[in-house]
Amino acid sequence: MTILIGKRDRLNMNSYKVTFQPDGIQMTVNAPITLMEAAQRSGIVLNTVCGGVGTCHKCMVKVSGLPEPVRACQHRVDRDMTVTIPESSRFFEQKILQEGISRDEQLDPLLCKHYLKLSPSSLEDLRSDTTRLIDAVEDHVGPGKHTCRDHSGSVSGRTRISWDLLRKLPAIFRNHDYAVTVVCHSGRIFTLEPGDTSDNLFGLAVDVGTTTVVAQLIDLISGKTLAIASQTNPQVSLGDDVIRRIEYTTSQADGLEQLQHRIVECLNHLIAEVCKKSLVNHEQIYEMTAAGNATMQHLLLGIPVEQIAQSPYVAAVSSAVNVPAGSLGINIHPEGNIYVLPSVAAHIGGDTVGVAVTTAMQHSEKINLALDIGTNGEIILGNKDRLVTCSTAAGPAFEGARIGQGMRGAHGAIERVKLDEEVKIAVIGSIQPTGICGSGLIDAVAELLRNGIVDYTGRLLTGDELPDTLNLEIKQRVVENDKGSAFVLVRASQTKHGKDIVLTQRDIREAQLAKAAIRAGITTLMNELEVQLEDIDRLFLAGAFGNYVRPESARRIGLIPNMKLEKIQTVGNAAGTGARLSLQSRKIRQEVESLAQELDYVELAGRTDFQNIFSECMFFPEA
Amino acid sequence: MTILIGKRDRLNMNSYKVTFQPDGIQMTVNAPITLMEAAQRSGIVLNTVCGGVGTCHKCMVKVSGLPEPVRACQHRVDRDMTVTIPESSRFFEQKILQEGISRDEQLDPLLCKHYLKLSPSSLEDLRSDTTRLIDAVEDHVGPGKHTCRDHSGSVSGRTRISWDLLRKLPAIFRNHDYAVTVVCHSGRIFTLEPGDTSDNLFGLAVDVGTTTVVAQLIDLISGKTLAIASQTNPQVSLGDDVIRRIEYTTSQADGLEQLQHRIVECLNHLIAEVCKKSLVNHEQIYEMTAAGNATMQHLLLGIPVEQIAQSPYVAAVSSAVNVPAGSLGINIHPEGNIYVLPSVAAHIGGDTVGVAVTTAMQHSEKINLALDIGTNGEIILGNKDRLVTCSTAAGPAFEGARIGQGMRGAHGAIERVKLDEEVKIAVIGSIQPTGICGSGLIDAVAELLRNGIVDYTGRLLTGDELPDTLNLEIKQRVVENDKGSAFVLVRASQTKHGKDIVLTQRDIREAQLAKAAIRAGITTLMNELEVQLEDIDRLFLAGAFGNYVRPESARRIGLIPNMKLEKIQTVGNAAGTGARLSLQSRKIRQEVESLAQELDYVELAGRTDFQNIFSECMFFPEA
Repeated sequence: MTILIGKRDRLNMNSYKVTFQPDGIQMTVNAPITLMEAAQRSGIVLNTVCGGVGTCHKCMVKVSGLPEPVRACQHRVDRDMTVTIPESSRFFEQKILQEGISRDEQLDPLLCKHYLKLSPSSLEDLRSDTTRLIDAVEDHVGPGKHTCRDHSGSVSGRTRISWDLLRKLPAIFRNHDYAVTVVCHSGRIFTLEPGDTSDNLFGLAVDVGTTTVVAQLIDLISGKTLAIASQTNPQVSLGDDVIRRIEYTTSQADGLEQLQHRIVECLNHLIAEVCKKSLVNHEQIYEMTAAGNATMQHLLLGIPVEQIAQSPYVAAVSSAVNVPAGSLGINIHPEGNIYVLPSVAAHIGGDTVGVAVTTAMQHSEKINLALDIGTNGEIILGNKDRLVTCSTAAGPAFEGARIGQGMRGAHGAIERVKLDEEVKIAVIGSIQPTGICGSGLIDAVAELLRNGIVDYTGRLLTGDELPDTLNLEIKQRVVENDKGSAFVLVRASQTKHGKDIVLTQRDIREAQLAKAAIRAGITTLMNELEVQLEDIDRLFLAGAFGNYVRPESARRIGLIPNMKLEKIQTVGNAAGTGARLSLQSRKIRQEVESLAQELDYVELAGRTDFQNIFSECMFFPEA
Repeated sequence: MTILIGKRDRLNMNSYKVTFQPDGIQMTVNAPITLMEAAQRSGIVLNTVCGGVGTCHKCMVKVSGLPEPVRACQHRVDRDMTVTIPESSRFFEQKILQEGISRDEQLDPLLCKHYLKLSPSSLEDLRSDTTRLIDAVEDHVGPGKHTCRDHSGSVSGRTRISWDLLRKLPAIFRNHDYAVTVVCHSGRIFTLEPGDTSDNLFGLAVDVGTTTVVAQLIDLISGKTLAIASQTNPQVSLGDDVIRRIEYTTSQADGLEQLQHRIVECLNHLIAEVCKKSLVNHEQIYEMTAAGNATMQHLLLGIPVEQIAQSPYVAAVSSAVNVPAGSLGINIHPEGNIYVLPSVAAHIGGDTVGVAVTTAMQHSEKINLALDIGTNGEIILGNKDRLVTCSTAAGPAFEGARIGQGMRGAHGAIERVKLDEEVKIAVIGSIQPTGICGSGLIDAVAELLRNGIVDYTGRLLTGDELPDTLNLEIKQRVVENDKGSAFVLVRASQTKHGKDIVLTQRDIREAQLAKAAIRAGITTLMNELEVQLEDIDRLFLAGAFGNYVRPESARRIGLIPNMKLEKIQTVGNAAGTGARLSLQSRKIRQEVESLAQELDYVELAGRTDFQNIFSECMFFPEA
C-alpha cells in the first residue's frame, strides 16, 4: 500500500505569499498547497474536468519566474509568487463570457456612494436639509433612478432617507461645509459620511454552510475580493446536522436564540478577520449577502424552523429577506442591509438558487443538470424554458455518517481509493488514515464494482464467487465476521488507531441507498421534463462534495448518469458565489429573485411514481 | 361696566352627556358650555360668520326635545341631550360637499385590515408561510393593489412584510388554524392578529400646538370620532414659545431629548385618555398623524431645530416623515406608523399645510386668502393655479406678550371690548379680569379707533385732542403717567388684582406693528399674484386666534383687508383637521404631500419691497 501525497497535504507548514492576477488578491498560504487550492481559498474557482488529478489541462496558469504555464492542480506553492490566471482557466468567468456578460458590465451593485458638495442654504435657497440632500443625490444619479413610490419608515416620495439619519443632517452639513458622501441602497440613503469617502464601498458575501461558514470581503468599487475567511459553523456543537439543530430549537426554550446567536457571533468573527486582513473599517461594509440551505437561512434570521422538519415540510419564508444589520447584531454598518437569498422550498434554499445563478442555467438554450450533494441531494434540471428542482433525502452517507468507519472530509479521512494489483489510497493531510469520507466511499464502491468484488445488485461477493482475475492479496481482503462480510481497505498496521478500516456489506448498502435516492431524483426530473440522457448538455457538480468526488467513480456507481467526463464540470462553492454575485450585480440579484419564483419544485413525496423509480435506481450499473 | 357672561364661562360645573348625530360622538361636558363649544371639542367645526355672537344663524342645530332648531353658539347645555347637526351647519362638510366629495368616498385610509382564512400547507401546497400570507392578502385586496417595487427592511417584491413579523408567522398560523387578521399600511403588512379583528381599526390625529396638544381618536371603519382629549403642551415649562424652546435645545446638552420626551409623554397621556373614554385597546391604534408648526414637528421627531432659528432659517426636513411608533416611544401599536405632515419652510409647517387642505384652496377656481395668526402669521393666497404663502414675524403681541397687561386667552383675560357710552368687556370664565388677550386687544384698539381716541397714525389722543362726542366717563379713562399716555380699560376696583387694566400708547404701537407685519404679508402675496382685494372670494381665519377674534375688529384695525363679513369664515383647528383628513383619506394624504411641494414660499426677508409695504401698512385705516 502506498500513501499518495494528496493535494490537501499540510505536513509542511511554511508560509508564502501568493498574489493572484489580474484579481489583485494577495494571500498568505501554508505550504504545501497546490495553486488550485490556494486559488479556491481566495474565491477563484478554476476549471477542472479531471477533478484536479492533472489529466485535463483545463487549469493552466502562469507563475512568476516560470517560462511555461503550469497546471494549477499539480503545481505547489513553494515560494512567494505571483500567479496570473487567464480567463480560459476560470470556471466562473468562462461561464459569464459564454453568456456574453463582461466583467465590467457585471459590477453594478445595489449599493452606491456619491460624494456631494452641496450649496449651503441661503435666503435665495431655503430648501430643507433633507430636500437639499435628496435633490443633490438625484441630480447626481440622474432623474428617476432612485424614484420609489413607497416610503415605509422614511421620508415620503423620491429617494428615501431614514428618520434616524435625517436627525443627523443639520449637524453634519454645518460641521463639514456641506461636503458629504452618501451611501445609497436601492433608492434609500441609509448613511452619510463627512467629506469624500466615495472610494470606500465594501460588501460581504457569505456562504452559511451547515458545517463551514465562508465570508468574502468585496471591494464594490473595483469588484476585487480583498479577503476571505472561513470558520466552522459554531452551531455544530448544538447539533451536527440540520435536523438536530431544528430539534434543538424545540427541545430548548431558547434554542432558536442560541443558534442564531452562534451564527451571528461566527459572522462577527469572520468580519473582524477579513477587516483585519484588508485594513477595511467594518462600518464601511454596507451590505452582507448570505446564502445557505433554508434552515441555515432561517436560523440566521431567528425565524422558527420547526415546520421545516414536520410534514408537509414548509419554510416560514421563501422570498429574499432584507433586514438592517443592527437588528441582527451583525457588525457591519448598523444601518447596512443584510440580504438573505430567496429559497424555493423547505429543502431548496438560497444555496441551490446560488447553484442555478452561478451556472446560469436559466439562460441556457441547452438542457443542463446540476447536483449539490450533502445530507440531501439538491438537483436542478432544465434550460431557459423551464427549470425543475427537487431535494432527495440521500441521507448523510456521503458525509461519512451511517458508514461503519465513515467520517467527514477531515485530516485522516481516506478520500481516494484505487484498486488494481494493490489498494492505493489518498488520505487528507497525508497521514495514517482513521476512516473514510464521502469521496473515498464512492471511489471504493466504484473500484469494488469495477473489479467484480461487488455485483450489480450491491452484494459483496465472497470466497469462490470472487473473480479469478483478482490476486490473492486482494482476495484476502474480503473477510467475514459475525456482522457479515466486509472488504479491508487498510490493514490495522497502517491505520492510526491500529484497527482495520473496512467497508462492510452494510456500508455498501448505505452508499447504494444514497446514490439511488439521488439518481431517482434525477430520473424523476428527467421524466418531468421528458428529456433523455443525450439531451443533457452538461452536468454541474456543486459544493464541497462535488468538488472532491471523482466524476468517474460517481458515474461508475450510478450516482450520476452515464455521461462523458468532458460534460461534467465542478462549480465549487456555488452558495458563496451566488451570494457574491448578488452583492456585485443588481441584475443578478433580480435574477436570483426571479429564479426562486421560476424554479419549479417537484415534491418527491407527493409523487406516486417515485418509489418505482427509486427501486429501479437501486442497482449498480453493469460494467 | 358690565361683565358679560361669555361663552367660555365655566363657573357652574354640572356634568351632562351630549351626543352629536349623525356622527355618533358622545361626550361629557361641564356646564355651562354652548353647543358650539361642545361640538368644537368633539372635533366638529360649525359654520359661523358672526364669530359666535348669534347674528349670522349659520350654526342652526336640532336639540332633542325642542321643536325648533336653535343657534349652537347661543344655546347652552343644561341637561343630557342629543344634538343633530345638519350638513348645512358644518363648516368642513359643507366645504367637502362643495368640492363634490361625499363623506363615504372620503373614508379611504391608508390603513386596512383583512380577515383571512388561509388554507393550511399540504403536500399539494407547499408555499412558505410568508408566501401563503402575501398571496392571500393580494387575492383579498385585488391584484396589483399592494404591489411595490421596493423592499427596504422587509421581504422583497409585492406586498411587504417586516422581518420581525415573519418570525412570528409559523406559530400564529399553527396555533390559530390559519385564521388571522392582517393590518396593512401602504403595501406593507405590519402586524397580524389571531382570529377576526377586522372591526377594530383605529387611528389618532394630533394637533401638536406650541401651547395645546389635541388628540382625536378615529374609528377608521366608520369614520367616526370616538374620543377627543387635549392637554397643555408640557414643553411650555421648558420654553414658552418656539424660539425659547429652540434656545433650550442649544443651551442644554440634552435639551432636544428633554423636549422630545415631554411631547411623547404628553401624547401617551392623551392616548391613554382617549382609549379609556372609548374602551379601545391602544395597540389597535395603528397610525397617528401629527401636524404642528415646523419646530413642534421637529421636536416630536427629535430632529435638531437650531437652524430654524438662525439665518437663513431652514428646516432639517420639510417632506412628510413616516416612522414606526416604537422608535419614538409612542404608545400605539409599536409597529404602527407615525405620520408627520410635510412642511413648506422653517416657518410654514404642517399646520399651515393643514389650513390649505382643510379649506381646499388648491381646488378652488376662485382666489382665497387664509390666515393663521400666532407668534408668526402664516398666510396663504391663491387658487388652483398657484398658491403662495409666507410667514410674517408678527411677534407675540396677539398672544398677549409685549403688551403691558397682556396675557394668553386663559381665565381672567379680557376677550371682548365694546366702547360706547361705557366700556363693556367680556372676560374668559366670567370672572374679574386680570389682563387682556389677543382678541380683546384687537377689539380694544378697534373701538379706540372707532371712537376717535386713537388716530390713524396710531397715536392715543389726549385732553383737548379727544373728540367732543365722547362722554366724560370715557374721556376720563385717557390718562397720562411717566410712561406716557394710556387708556384705562378696567378700573382697579373691578379687577382681580386691584390695579387698573390699561392699554398704553406702547401697547397700541405693539398691536400696530403686529398687524402691519401680517397685513404687509398679505399685500406682498397679493402683489406676487397680482390680485386685487375684489378678486379675493373668501378669507379663512384659522387656529384658535382666528376662532376668537372678531372679524369686524380685525378689519377695523387693518389686520385683514376691508372685506364683507360674509366673505370671512373661521376654519377652527385646521392643523387637527389636516391631521384627521390625512388619517382618513389616502387621497387627502396625497394632496397634503403635493400641497407642500406646490405651496410657493415667499421669503419676505429676501424681498426689497417688503420694508416699503410694511411702512405703508403701519397706518390704521381711516373710518
